[in-house]
Amino acid sequence: MAVGLHAPVARSLQPVAGCELGWAQAGIRKAGRKDLLLIRLADRAAAAGVFTRNRFCAAPVQVCRAHLGAGVPIRALLINTGCANAGTGAAGVADALRTCEAAARLIGCEPAQVLPFSTGVIMEPLPVQAIVDALPQAVARLDPAAWLEAAETIMTTDTVPKAVSRSCDLGGANVTVTGIAKGAGMIRPDMATLLAFVATDAHVAPGILPELTRRAADASFNRITVDGDMSTNDSFVVVATGRGDAQPIASLDDPRCGALERAIGEVAHELALAIVRDGEGASKFIRITVENARSRHEASTVAYAVAHSPLVKTAMFASDPNLGRILSAVGASGIEDLDPSAVQLYLNDVWVARDGARHPDYREQDGQHAMRGAEILVRIVLGRGSAAASVWTCDLSHQYVSINADYRS
Amino acid sequence: MAVGLHAPVARSLQPVAGCELGWAQAGIRKAGRKDLLLIRLADRAAAAGVFTRNRFCAAPVQVCRAHLGAGVPIRALLINTGCANAGTGAAGVADALRTCEAAARLIGCEPAQVLPFSTGVIMEPLPVQAIVDALPQAVARLDPAAWLEAAETIMTTDTVPKAVSRSCDLGGANVTVTGIAKGAGMIRPDMATLLAFVATDAHVAPGILPELTRRAADASFNRITVDGDMSTNDSFVVVATGRGDAQPIASLDDPRCGALERAIGEVAHELALAIVRDGEGASKFIRITVENARSRHEASTVAYAVAHSPLVKTAMFASDPNLGRILSAVGASGIEDLDPSAVQLYLNDVWVARDGARHPDYREQDGQHAMRGAEILVRIVLGRGSAAASVWTCDLSHQYVSINADYRS
Repeated sequence: MAVGLHAPVARSLQPVAGCELGWAQAGIRKAGRKDLLLIRLADRAAAAGVFTRNRFCAAPVQVCRAHLGAGVPIRALLINTGCANAGTGAAGVADALRTCEAAARLIGCEPAQVLPFSTGVIMEPLPVQAIVDALPQAVARLDPAAWLEAAETIMTTDTVPKAVSRSCDLGGANVTVTGIAKGAGMIRPDMATLLAFVATDAHVAPGILPELTRRAADASFNRITVDGDMSTNDSFVVVATGRGDAQPIASLDDPRCGALERAIGEVAHELALAIVRDGEGASKFIRITVENARSRHEASTVAYAVAHSPLVKTAMFASDPNLGRILSAVGASGIEDLDPSAVQLYLNDVWVARDGARHPDYREQDGQHAMRGAEILVRIVLGRGSAAASVWTCDLSHQYVSINADYRS
Repeated sequence: MAVGLHAPVARSLQPVAGCELGWAQAGIRKAGRKDLLLIRLADRAAAAGVFTRNRFCAAPVQVCRAHLGAGVPIRALLINTGCANAGTGAAGVADALRTCEAAARLIGCEPAQVLPFSTGVIMEPLPVQAIVDALPQAVARLDPAAWLEAAETIMTTDTVPKAVSRSCDLGGANVTVTGIAKGAGMIRPDMATLLAFVATDAHVAPGILPELTRRAADASFNRITVDGDMSTNDSFVVVATGRGDAQPIASLDDPRCGALERAIGEVAHELALAIVRDGEGASKFIRITVENARSRHEASTVAYAVAHSPLVKTAMFASDPNLGRILSAVGASGIEDLDPSAVQLYLNDVWVARDGARHPDYREQDGQHAMRGAEILVRIVLGRGSAAASVWTCDLSHQYVSINADYRS
């Protein structure tokens, strides 16, 4: 059902020097599927991450934060599907650490140099032994070209693997940025609600990578929503191996930093949109843009209110231009002094509502035509200021209910 | 699909002296269905209301606020289904006023003594002429015993009419409280997201009725949610005709006021729960109770976060004890300093999670057994304080999607 995603990724994925990927079948939840991924990094790579703000954050998220804070270079990322290792208390943290120890032994580093990630069912114990037993398979398969297999390995309810490459010129040297992501449900802003890993062979000072990572997340994974549920396991990690030809970037003010930031941002943005296009049960890809707000925060608030409305989302699924539901969601978004009579609503290029009421020239068949498309732009003009924001979402379909009703079966 | 609603209402509905109800078929959206209700009140009745906080509030809501603020006794309520008269701008207000004028002419009062209410599709013009033409039918049918027909007339996606009566003793005089409500989707707190009308023959000073109405709403319609969408048209009105035998109540401190407040509260609460039981596509009736919170507001916040989670709601639909989703929703509820290791989770009498992780004695089959029931209690103990709150909600089913995808067809 993924909207406009035609697996164009395989041919164009570029390896990143200093980064190898190996998968295994650990049988964590189901036998015979790729469910364990090891990413080995060259030594002295820089790494930074942003993580879920869910207070029930998973054990691996707690371990990631500790290991990133320890100040030692990260040498490996270890990702499993099938079990989230969340809602597992202190035992879950111990389990995550045991998988780090096993990976560290195999590749020759300290456990604190391994970042663990899990995704899957919450409140079930991590099958540590299965992971430990399968790790040698993953090590044996380590390959700098295995990005597509890596993207496939981290899929859960995703229907297509998500991987993107970009290159950019950094002061005459070509630099590669390649990333993978998984996520289809439990997707909402703040934060990413998914797993995403982006690597570059640029050389970036560890001190500035966290800020680059945060900016990329804010413009990508923090601007999408499928169902408004914030996961326990959201993690977005950027690694810079420094194994390319470009000279080191030591400061955010370095003019080359902007080019790298754009490339990382493009990869993150494309991965984020791929997650929405592949949203659970999605049949529509919807951009909601709110303009003329008093602040960017206000514009975002209104956009998310529309994006999270089950009534708007079911109307989108039905291609039914029941567009008053959008006005209702705008009105319910909590902007206390909003003047409805200043609000304009457009669907693609169709002017639906003028000054808070149906436009006199609006014709149902024009709205119907716009709603039938697989990609829809909802534009809401508040008439209050000059700030704007966009979010991306998908519709709410029968398949969303089926997928989440049957998730564990 | 209504959960545990077996239309027990018809036999027990009590007329309220000074209150007559008459329905008509105006053909507002579909021909041949009751879609217009007139409630005529004896003169000098007191009336008060609480209304949606949606900034795109419907034209009739604006007119109701103005008429209730004018200080003249209300003589009639006029309710139509099929068209919400919301997102209709100044023309919508003029349309609502024209229906008030028509009703006022027929029953012999001022237009400002009529309160209009609409429910149905948003952003479509009100068919005023159809309403005006049908009003004489409604007047001809005015009948103090027509509460059940009145409840049927205001139904939209409701599958059962909702009407409740209580009586109470007020200083030796028997007083009746009877109410009706409609609502099945677009239901969330703040405020009622529905239409509800409660009448009593008690004599209540107009100055204290607004506070009694607000208290009743806070304990009933403001504690339920179906889909988190706040309607443009929510209205809850209480009228006190003063035509019973009880002596007037002039003060909130009058000891008899508590008895009346309890009776009104019980009617409102039962109507509110009936709305959840009849939630669009509902197959489960779910009470979420949060205890040991620092404040009632905090307890409510957590309860609503769980109640609004599509992942929790689809798991409920599937009777799948994927209960980590509840912990995840608790963690995502925005309580910044929540300590997950202090959280307990119970499903009915099954202790699911202890200290933030699965209880060692929890058995999947016990959770499964609880989930299979049509009525489920989710109890979350935060371990932070002594405040508690409950909200009532339903599951998210295929039928919810079907109903809202096909709403206008």
